[in-house]
Amino acid sequence: MTNLINKYQKLVNDTIPISRYMQWQILSLDDQEISTRTQLQPNINVHGTGFAGSVYSAAMATGWTLMKAWNDSNQYENTLLAAEANIKYLSPVYCDFVCHAGIKIPSAEYSKLVARLNQKSSVGFPLTIEVSCENNVCAILEVLFVFKC
Amino acid sequence: MTNLINKYQKLVNDTIPISRYMQWQILSLDDQEISTRTQLQPNINVHGTGFAGSVYSAAMATGWTLMKAWNDSNQYENTLLAAEANIKYLSPVYCDFVCHAGIKIPSAEYSKLVARLNQKSSVGFPLTIEVSCENNVCAILEVLFVFKC
Repeated sequence: MTNLINKYQKLVNDTIPISRYMQWQILSLDDQEISTRTQLQPNINVHGTGFAGSVYSAAMATGWTLMKAWNDSNQYENTLLAAEANIKYLSPVYCDFVCHAGIKIPSAEYSKLVARLNQKSSVGFPLTIEVSCENNVCAILEVLFVFKC
Repeated sequence: MTNLINKYQKLVNDTIPISRYMQWQILSLDDQEISTRTQLQPNINVHGTGFAGSVYSAAMATGWTLMKAWNDSNQYENTLLAAEANIKYLSPVYCDFVCHAGIKIPSAEYSKLVARLNQKSSVGFPLTIEVSCENNVCAILEVLFVFKC
């Protein structure tokens, strides 16, 4: 797992430079699940809590990295994009925060994803990312990713 | 207008430090309308276009600044928060990008906002922010802001 973490941490830091400024860090990663931690300090707002944009960005980077790792481990060749996203802010982010996402297997959406990619057809896939401070869920991001073949 | 721009540029840069890293800059601002420009380079993704999180953050900062400026100019005292947001990515952000938002006056939502704040009651207000490259709309962010009294 350490090799996988190092590979995707480097990929994200090298290609999405703001992830370095945000101090976004992968804690655990396999092809079905990811956890990351982001430092609060570079990401504060006028209230000293997490800036809505940074909370979203950390969660988006987390979701993207999971889908990219899944895609690579299954040796699909395509372009991974975010088409649409919705975020609900439940409570202020008052400390370094954890983003967590997992791919639901089995599920109808997952079966469709695999079937379409095996036909080399583009397909959308929804992923939910939870943002927490000390196990208190502060925000929930839902992203519609698109795999473009 | 220059004084207003300087005041809110400083407020955002001082209290949302990531706005400095992003090179987010107010182009025009009054209490009904705002335009900002954000540099692409610090905000790229793996494709060299705008990272979904940065595009969202720039638009969110733009919407927040407009609502904050409106709130201050009307001398309301409350806390301004984002409760929920939805973003649609229409096409890649391939250059320095402009975010634009305006408060629709008159509108039923605006009448409700003013009536509730005059009663010192908390109220939600939806705002749409458009993100463009060279006049091509690349993303649309809809934010539900909450004024907490």
